[in-house]
Amino acid sequence: MEKTLKIAVLGGGSWATAIVKMLTESMDEVGWYMRSVYAIEHIKRNDHNPSYLSSVEFDVDRLKLSNDINEIVAYADVCIFAIPSAFLHSELSALTVSFEGKRVVSAIKGIVPETGLIVGEYFNQHQNVDMDDIGVLTGPCHAEEVALERLSYLTVAFADETKAKELAEYFENDYINCKISDDIIGTEYAAVLKNIYAIAAGIAHGLGYGDNFQSVLMSNAIREMKRYIKKVHKMKRNINDSAYLGDLLVTGYSVFSRNRLFGNMLGKGYTVRSAQLEMSMIAEGYYATKSAYELNQKQGAKTPILDAVHDILYENKNPKKIFKKLAEKLD
Amino acid sequence: MEKTLKIAVLGGGSWATAIVKMLTESMDEVGWYMRSVYAIEHIKRNDHNPSYLSSVEFDVDRLKLSNDINEIVAYADVCIFAIPSAFLHSELSALTVSFEGKRVVSAIKGIVPETGLIVGEYFNQHQNVDMDDIGVLTGPCHAEEVALERLSYLTVAFADETKAKELAEYFENDYINCKISDDIIGTEYAAVLKNIYAIAAGIAHGLGYGDNFQSVLMSNAIREMKRYIKKVHKMKRNINDSAYLGDLLVTGYSVFSRNRLFGNMLGKGYTVRSAQLEMSMIAEGYYATKSAYELNQKQGAKTPILDAVHDILYENKNPKKIFKKLAEKLD
Repeated sequence: MEKTLKIAVLGGGSWATAIVKMLTESMDEVGWYMRSVYAIEHIKRNDHNPSYLSSVEFDVDRLKLSNDINEIVAYADVCIFAIPSAFLHSELSALTVSFEGKRVVSAIKGIVPETGLIVGEYFNQHQNVDMDDIGVLTGPCHAEEVALERLSYLTVAFADETKAKELAEYFENDYINCKISDDIIGTEYAAVLKNIYAIAAGIAHGLGYGDNFQSVLMSNAIREMKRYIKKVHKMKRNINDSAYLGDLLVTGYSVFSRNRLFGNMLGKGYTVRSAQLEMSMIAEGYYATKSAYELNQKQGAKTPILDAVHDILYENKNPKKIFKKLAEKLD
Repeated sequence: MEKTLKIAVLGGGSWATAIVKMLTESMDEVGWYMRSVYAIEHIKRNDHNPSYLSSVEFDVDRLKLSNDINEIVAYADVCIFAIPSAFLHSELSALTVSFEGKRVVSAIKGIVPETGLIVGEYFNQHQNVDMDDIGVLTGPCHAEEVALERLSYLTVAFADETKAKELAEYFENDYINCKISDDIIGTEYAAVLKNIYAIAAGIAHGLGYGDNFQSVLMSNAIREMKRYIKKVHKMKRNINDSAYLGDLLVTGYSVFSRNRLFGNMLGKGYTVRSAQLEMSMIAEGYYATKSAYELNQKQGAKTPILDAVHDILYENKNPKKIFKKLAEKLD
């Protein structure tokens, strides 16, 4: 297939940087919006992002860099968003260019806190993007391993699989296998929920639970995820596919996951506020927990792990007691 | 329920030691057969096993220790075998006492290499134990964490769940949640296959594949396990229950697993023979791979991971090339 799409990545963090790296392997030009003028100048002068994945060298002639979001959105046929969900709403407030005729891909995996919506739904409801033009780019994939060119698998989802296939071809290379899916709702909720389960894994670790418990927790988490997503959007899916189970495992077993680290601090006795201050950032799963919990009050899926994390984060409940009760519910 | 069964554990390794520890929490007497007179004398004098989980202190008054397998089998209503599968056949050659009227529980999770049978089938076909009297005791459970009294979940399976329930009550305590199942074939095959997948995880690690690949490998492994077990014994089961997925994860993600270590050495370039010599023991998954592969030649389940491990272990194929091909088949 001829590669004629203009693609832009929006975001300056490690996942955005990894996505740009993958695209530049096969494309002559990739649009890249980031807020920081300093970072842009650094990349132009030194061929790498100063703050994230700085071992990755770019051919800057292939980068159309700008800190003007309108310029980059106007340029692109496909806009891949990798801005933390907590900043998405405010970043987009500067936008005057329309998304009409463009495709918008969420690589964010969070809930937009101002709205309680997953990113795809947010673009649909707040930016008038047709659901047919909304895609999801998901793992299982640590950005750091993309930097090392270690074999990784991505999943691109669009309701219309031909659109997924078209975009997937831009990602395929020696170290990336890119799969497609038509489950834009399920893959994005899976990516949201797995951050919550990573917080749970962190709390358990912080409380002194071991590997035996962790395996039971993950086995229960994937069954809980299946029940939850089925309520949100019922369709034929195999929850053990890489985009769901693989993504859960790569995060839940990662010692680098910010969500797991956040949970670990809570398990060790930090308050939510002090853990957040200590991390000097807010883990995606923090917002996701509230929104996912509230949505489920209407849906009614059985979600003991989500409920436990919610009660610890938002009801100020004691992690040790909550996990003792949770452990009785797991099997 | 009144606890009136006489239970014995057969084996002297870490898993046998962990099982005895769990049983002595609630029982006044537990039978324990092990081959080594030296180890028995050491336990009697020093209250702990000299070679395995030596931090675990026993109340030796509660142990009926013997190196005479006939004495212990004659004593017990329930015989729990935790002897490595490679030694089971020769250990039982000394047996003159019959299993009539007794229950036999496999805590071995291997294939008896002389016969190609899983342990339950072996006892049925070679020791005339009725299938209704055969049980399986499975994890996800590292013995080391039982020694530390870290919360762990066991599964006891009998075709008749009342028998499973009866035995499960002997294991339940503050740090053990014991679940029951009626899937004696599936749980035992799951425990066998997970060792093979742990070898695969080790090979991948040794070859330099990272966490992204590992999560895809495990996600494919659980789907492969489901297909395989369905061919062996079709029944209603949720492959994401702890006894299947949990057991796969606790082994596949363990840096202590002998099977994973064995695979890791192969990935790093050791030959099969030199890896075995270096480890001074043979990982359970080594035999399991051959038997599981041969059985599947008749069954015809799609098993790319099993096939890859088989070709490396028994066809002397190059791990790097085989995994490159395997990676193309995973999704």
